[in-house]
Amino acid sequence: MSNITVKKTAHPFDKARLEALLNRRFFYAPAFEIYGGVAGLYDYGPPGSSLQSNIIAEWRKHFIVEEHMLELDTTIMTPAPVFETSGHVARFADWMVKDLKTGEVLRADHLVKNVLSARLASDQEARGLAAQPPKEDEKAKKKAKKDKAKAAPVQLPDAVVAEYQHVLAQLDNYSGPELGQLCRKHKITNPDTDNEVSEPQQFNLMFASSIGPTGQHPGYLRPETAQGHFLNFSRLLEFNNGRVPFASAQIGRSFRNEISPRAGLLRVREFTMAEIEHYVDPEDKRHARFGEVRDVELDLLDRHVQEAGSTQVTRMRVGDAVARGIIANETLGYFLARIYMFLTKIGINPARLRFRQHMGNEMAHYATDCWDAEIENSTGWTECVGCADRAAYDLSVHSAKTGHPLIVREALKEPIVTEKETAEFNKKTLGKTFGKDSAAIQTIIGEMDETQLLKLKGELAQGIATIVASDGREFKLTPDLLTIERKTFKQSIREYTPNVIEPSFGLGRILYTLLEHSFWSREQDVERGVLSLPAVVAPTKVLIVPLSAKEEFTPLVQEVSSKLRRAGVFSRVDDSNTSIGKRYARNDELGTPFGLTLDFASVQNRTMTLRERDTTGQLIGPIDDVIAVVTELVQGTIGWPEACERLPAYDGVQAVD
Amino acid sequence: MSNITVKKTAHPFDKARLEALLNRRFFYAPAFEIYGGVAGLYDYGPPGSSLQSNIIAEWRKHFIVEEHMLELDTTIMTPAPVFETSGHVARFADWMVKDLKTGEVLRADHLVKNVLSARLASDQEARGLAAQPPKEDEKAKKKAKKDKAKAAPVQLPDAVVAEYQHVLAQLDNYSGPELGQLCRKHKITNPDTDNEVSEPQQFNLMFASSIGPTGQHPGYLRPETAQGHFLNFSRLLEFNNGRVPFASAQIGRSFRNEISPRAGLLRVREFTMAEIEHYVDPEDKRHARFGEVRDVELDLLDRHVQEAGSTQVTRMRVGDAVARGIIANETLGYFLARIYMFLTKIGINPARLRFRQHMGNEMAHYATDCWDAEIENSTGWTECVGCADRAAYDLSVHSAKTGHPLIVREALKEPIVTEKETAEFNKKTLGKTFGKDSAAIQTIIGEMDETQLLKLKGELAQGIATIVASDGREFKLTPDLLTIERKTFKQSIREYTPNVIEPSFGLGRILYTLLEHSFWSREQDVERGVLSLPAVVAPTKVLIVPLSAKEEFTPLVQEVSSKLRRAGVFSRVDDSNTSIGKRYARNDELGTPFGLTLDFASVQNRTMTLRERDTTGQLIGPIDDVIAVVTELVQGTIGWPEACERLPAYDGVQAVD
Repeated sequence: MSNITVKKTAHPFDKARLEALLNRRFFYAPAFEIYGGVAGLYDYGPPGSSLQSNIIAEWRKHFIVEEHMLELDTTIMTPAPVFETSGHVARFADWMVKDLKTGEVLRADHLVKNVLSARLASDQEARGLAAQPPKEDEKAKKKAKKDKAKAAPVQLPDAVVAEYQHVLAQLDNYSGPELGQLCRKHKITNPDTDNEVSEPQQFNLMFASSIGPTGQHPGYLRPETAQGHFLNFSRLLEFNNGRVPFASAQIGRSFRNEISPRAGLLRVREFTMAEIEHYVDPEDKRHARFGEVRDVELDLLDRHVQEAGSTQVTRMRVGDAVARGIIANETLGYFLARIYMFLTKIGINPARLRFRQHMGNEMAHYATDCWDAEIENSTGWTECVGCADRAAYDLSVHSAKTGHPLIVREALKEPIVTEKETAEFNKKTLGKTFGKDSAAIQTIIGEMDETQLLKLKGELAQGIATIVASDGREFKLTPDLLTIERKTFKQSIREYTPNVIEPSFGLGRILYTLLEHSFWSREQDVERGVLSLPAVVAPTKVLIVPLSAKEEFTPLVQEVSSKLRRAGVFSRVDDSNTSIGKRYARNDELGTPFGLTLDFASVQNRTMTLRERDTTGQLIGPIDDVIAVVTELVQGTIGWPEACERLPAYDGVQAVD
Repeated sequence: MSNITVKKTAHPFDKARLEALLNRRFFYAPAFEIYGGVAGLYDYGPPGSSLQSNIIAEWRKHFIVEEHMLELDTTIMTPAPVFETSGHVARFADWMVKDLKTGEVLRADHLVKNVLSARLASDQEARGLAAQPPKEDEKAKKKAKKDKAKAAPVQLPDAVVAEYQHVLAQLDNYSGPELGQLCRKHKITNPDTDNEVSEPQQFNLMFASSIGPTGQHPGYLRPETAQGHFLNFSRLLEFNNGRVPFASAQIGRSFRNEISPRAGLLRVREFTMAEIEHYVDPEDKRHARFGEVRDVELDLLDRHVQEAGSTQVTRMRVGDAVARGIIANETLGYFLARIYMFLTKIGINPARLRFRQHMGNEMAHYATDCWDAEIENSTGWTECVGCADRAAYDLSVHSAKTGHPLIVREALKEPIVTEKETAEFNKKTLGKTFGKDSAAIQTIIGEMDETQLLKLKGELAQGIATIVASDGREFKLTPDLLTIERKTFKQSIREYTPNVIEPSFGLGRILYTLLEHSFWSREQDVERGVLSLPAVVAPTKVLIVPLSAKEEFTPLVQEVSSKLRRAGVFSRVDDSNTSIGKRYARNDELGTPFGLTLDFASVQNRTMTLRERDTTGQLIGPIDDVIAVVTELVQGTIGWPEACERLPAYDGVQAVD
C-alpha cells in the first residue's frame, strides 16, 4: 500500500533511544573514545559526515550562490595582536566557579540554570503538575541518580517560583559578580557534591599556542571565522569592483575551550561554522530583495518581553517587525527570514524555531541589534544561528590599530558643494616678519572655526588683526601677510566605514537538533527507529537492494546505479547477506528516503519497486520509469502523493513465470 | 576565427608575473597582511577558495564515490597521549640550526640544500654552462641581492661537484648529526650573514595547547588527519559490515609549526589535506581493480637510483613495476596510478610529475614501502602526495596502549584443524595433594611445549613424573592427578591486524603547482596573462558578458544564467562598466574557460557568441544551441574542436537591422 497514514507521534520522543541509534550507526561518536574520550570533542562517522556535507552544500546554494557572496578560506591559527584588537583577549570569556572542596570547575550561569530549573521541576511535581521531566543534562542526571536516591519533591512558595522564573528568563543578562550573588542568595551549591562554590572568575575561552620555533609569537585558535573576513576587507571590496553592499562567506572550523561541556554536540570545543559578513552603508541598511521576504512570518521574542521576565513569543511578519522597529533594519530582517527559510528547508520543525533578541547587557557593547535563531530540543531552546548588526566596530578597530584604511570610497552621483572661509598665507612675507613663529601662526589660524575666521577677516579689513597663542603671546597681522576669502569646495568622493550584518551558523547544533526533530519510532514497534531526513540532506538518497548478492543481479544493479549517477542522484547498494526487511530497517535508521528493490521479476520483466521510508509504501513500474520518478522525488520537484499517481502501487506479490 | 593555434611558450615562465596575478586577483594572500603577516599562513580569496573547493569535489568523486570509501570528519585538537603512542611527540621533528651570532633559526636540511645548490649553480656559470638559474627561495635571493652585489661565479673541482650532487640526491636520508657534519665539512654558514651555525637540534613540529580550564590536559593540533581514522577503526569496520578491504577518507585542516617557512603555499603552517587509509589483509595485498590500471605508465625514481646519487627516472607500466618488485604490492601500485590519473585530470602536466620512492633512512621505521608523487615547479621537485604502506604499525600501537582490539575477525571458509597434546588436571585431587602449589604446577605444565608434554606423558605412563619449578623445588606427579592426551582443535575465525596503505594529499601544494603549470602570457602581449585551468576545477566555468548593464539585456542575462544553472553549470555575470575585451582579459586571469556575449543582435535575433579562453576563438549560434554546446564543453564530453564543428565561427561582426 502506498498511502497508509504515518503516525510519527505514537511513541513519545526518547532521547536515549535516539542516542543509541546515532552511536550504533556511527553518525558521530566521542573523539578519542578508545583513550577514554575528551569532553566536548566529537568525530563524525560516514553518515554524520555526509549529513554535514549535505547541509553545507545546501547552505552554499541558499546563501553564497543565491546572493553571489564572495567565499573565503582563512587560517585558524591567529597571531595574538589580532584578538587583542578585536577585544577577544580581554573579553571572550565565561564565568566559572570552583567547588570549594573538590576543585571541580563549573560554568557559573549553567550552574544557576540547572539548580533553579531542578527546584522548579521539583516544585511542579510537589504541586502534582509535573508534565515534563526537568530538562537537565543527561550525564548529570545519571550521576545524581547514582549518588543518592531521588529526593522527595519540594514545593516552593509562590513568590520564590516567580523569582526563579524571572532569573531564568534573563539569565544571559547577568554579569559574573551578579551570578555570584545569585549563588549566595539562593544557596546554590555544586549539585554533585552539595559543596559551596567559589566567587565566579573569568576564564578566556580561546585555545592558546605559540607560532614558530622561538616561542616569541603567541597565537590563538580562532573562536569564530569573522576576523579573517574583516582583515581581508580591502581585497574583497576590490574584488567586488569597489561596490557596496556585498557579502563575504566562510565555512570552517573554530575552537572554544569550553569550561565543562556536557551537552553532546550542543556544546563542543571544536566545531564547524558558516559565517556571512554583509557590508552595508551605515546610512542605508535597506536590502534590495527585502520585498521577497516581507511576508515571511517568524516567532519573535524581543528584548522587552524577556526583560519583563517572560518568554512569550509573538508571531509576526518580517515586514511588520522592521516597520515597527522591533527588528532594527531591513538587512537584518532579510537575513532572519532567509535563516528561517534555510532551517525549515533542511528539516527543522518551524513550530520549534524562534528568534530571540539579545538583551541590553547580553549584547556586545558595539552591536546595534542582535537576534538568535533558537531551536527547541530535549535540553530546551538552543541558539543555533546568531544574527548581529556589528555596526562599524570590527573594521574600525583593526583600521585604527594597523593604520590600514578599511573603508569604502564611493563616487558621489552629485558632488557635495560647500563654501567656507579660507585663509591663504603669503608665506614668504610671513616668514620674514615672524621667523620661526610663522608656523605656529598658521596652525592657530588653521584651527579656527568659521566664526573666528570671519572675525579675523573683519579685523584685517580694518588694517590690523591680533591673534593670541596658547602661551599668551600676541601676534599682529596685516593684510599683506594673509587674505581670508570665501571659497567653494566640491566633494566628489564619500568615504565611510561600512557596517556589518553577521549571520553566524553553528552547524553541529543545527545537525543535532535536526536529528532530534527527524527521529521517531514506528507505531507497531518502538524498536524500529526512523530518521525522517529530507532528501536534500539525507546521507544517501536512494538505496538499491538486490534480492541477494548473486551474479544474476549484478548487471541490473550496475545499470540502475549508473543511470542514477548520470541523473545526479547519489545511491548506495546494499547486497549484504540479510533479509530485505532488515536492510530497509537499517536504512530507515540512516534516514535514506527511497529504496529500489531488484528481484527475479526485475531480471525477467525489467520492473523495479520503489519504497518510501516514512510510509513504507511501495510502487512498481518499468525500471526507467521508476528512475525518472525517484529522480524527481530526490530533486523535490514532486512529492510522494504525486509519485503514487504516476506509478501503480505494489502489493508485495509479483508474478514470475 | 575559432581555430588559431595557441603558442603558450612564447614567453618564458615568469614567477613574479604569476605571483602578481594571483595577488591582484586574490587567489590567495598572506594571512593577517595588514598586521604584517605571519610566515607560513595564507588566506584564500574567492577564486582560490573556489579552485580549492573544485579540486576537493573532484577528489571526492575520483576517490570516495568511485571506491565507496567511508568518509570521516574528526577533530583537530588531540589529547597528548594519542601522539605519545603514535610516536609524534618523540619523533615528529625537524632539525634546526641557529645562527651563532644573530640567533636566527634555519632548517638544517634546507640550509645544506640551498648553499650547495647555489655553489653548484655558480660553478655551472663559471664553466659557462649556466642554463638554469639556481633554484633558491625567492625572498632569500632578494635579500641576498640587497645585502651585497652578486658574487663572481666560482668554479669547483670536478670531485667536489660530484660530491655535492651526491649529497643533494640523498639529502632526505641524513640524520641531524650528519647534517651538522656536512655543515662543518663543507663550511656551510648562514647565507644571509655568513655566520657559523650551531649543531642541529630537534624541534617538534606540532602546535601545543591545553584542553579545559585546569591546564592539566595537554593537547596538540594534529599534524595529519590519519590518527582520527585509526582510532575509529572498530566503528568503521562495523559500519562496513565487518568486511575487509575497505578505505576511510577525510578532508580537513592540519597544522605543522614549520621552522622557517619561506616557500609560499609550498611550505605552510596550516593546510588542508585529503587522506585515505585503505585497510588490507597483510597476507593479501592484491587489489580487485588492479587490472584497470595495469597499463598506466609512470615516471619512477626508485630508492636504489637515489642511493647511487642519481635522480634519473624510469618510465614504466605499473603492472611491470609491481611484477618486478619495484613497487611493493598491487594495492600500493593501484593507488599510485589513481593518484597519477587524478593529478593529470585536474591539469597537472604529466611531463612534470614523477613518483619518488623513499630511501631507507628517510622512510618511517615501520613502513614497508613509500612513494611520493612529486610535481616539478619553479622551486624544483615538490612532494605533493605521499603514498605509504604503513603496515600494521598504527593500529597495533594504539591497540597495545589502550587495550582496545583494533583487529579484523574473519570467518574462515574452511576451518583450520590442528591436533596437539593437551593436559587435563584432576583439580580436586591436585589441590588436596599440593595445596597452594597446585596453581604453580598447572602453570608450569601449561607453558610446556609439545616435546616437553610428550616426555611428561611418557613418564606418567611409567607411573610417576617429576617436574621442577623455577625455584628448584621438585613435584612428583602421578596419573590420578592429570592426563595428557592428543586432542583436535578447530579454528573457524581468523583474527588479524590489517595493514594500512595511506595516500595522503597536500591540497595547497597541488593547487599552487597547478597554477604554475596553468600560467602563460599571450604571444602578442606578455602583460596578458592566462590561467589555462581545466573546466573541471576552474573557479567559474562560464562568464556571461552583456554589452552593458543596461536594462534591455537583463531578461536575456537572466534567461541564460538560469538555463545554465538548470544544466548544472556555474556561471557569473560581469556587467561592470568596462569594455568587453577588458572583462575577458580579467577572466583569462581568473581561468574562466568560456565566455558568452550578449549584444544588440542577441536581443534582436536571439543569438549569442561563445568564446574559448586559450584560443580566444569565437563561435555564434542560437542561444539554446550555444547553451547546449557550452554545457557539453564544461562537462568535458566534447572539446573545442568538436564545438567548432557544431557552431559556425564568429568573425566579430554581426548584422543588426
